[in-house]
Amino acid sequence: MSRLSPPSPADTIVLAETFRLLGDPTRLRILFFCLDAPRSVGDIAQSLELSQPLVSHHLRLLRGARLVRGHRQARQVFYELADKHVSGMLADMAHHVAEEHADE
Amino acid sequence: MSRLSPPSPADTIVLAETFRLLGDPTRLRILFFCLDAPRSVGDIAQSLELSQPLVSHHLRLLRGARLVRGHRQARQVFYELADKHVSGMLADMAHHVAEEHADE
Repeated sequence: MSRLSPPSPADTIVLAETFRLLGDPTRLRILFFCLDAPRSVGDIAQSLELSQPLVSHHLRLLRGARLVRGHRQARQVFYELADKHVSGMLADMAHHVAEEHADE
Repeated sequence: MSRLSPPSPADTIVLAETFRLLGDPTRLRILFFCLDAPRSVGDIAQSLELSQPLVSHHLRLLRGARLVRGHRQARQVFYELADKHVSGMLADMAHHVAEEHADE
């Protein structure tokens, strides 16, 4: 990976907003559920035991921050993580938290 | 990287708390400044034009979430990112935000 220069002030603010959006357990559950395969709203709602309007609300926010993207297939929209940076970031943080236990 | 299973409910809550902590532009500036090399509180304060007590406050929170670690050298403590997961996550998100412009 190329050497990382610090983000611009404007990008730093966008980055902070994106992290704040990730600071919600339900949104994280939705993201991890969409990590392996594209999922429909109904699929997410049923598997995570959430209402469809709540799932749609969270997906709208996650899509606004470009953390997920949707693609239409016949009459359904399927959601998946936006790109490999998002999935890499989630994987890194899941490992980071898991390693916390290893220290105990 | 090994296939990622979704974090446990308890880990999901810790993860959300960690992301919320990252949702602050000043804390992000501190993290990016400590990405290349270990930095002292004085170094961070001077370079980012922040007060030393404010920097210490943020470092305490970042250390509590194991995002940075400090090591003492003579009479000074130097702070760096806790591990490669934290630096990888920051790099991924910086690229993610930078690519946003590429779409425009």
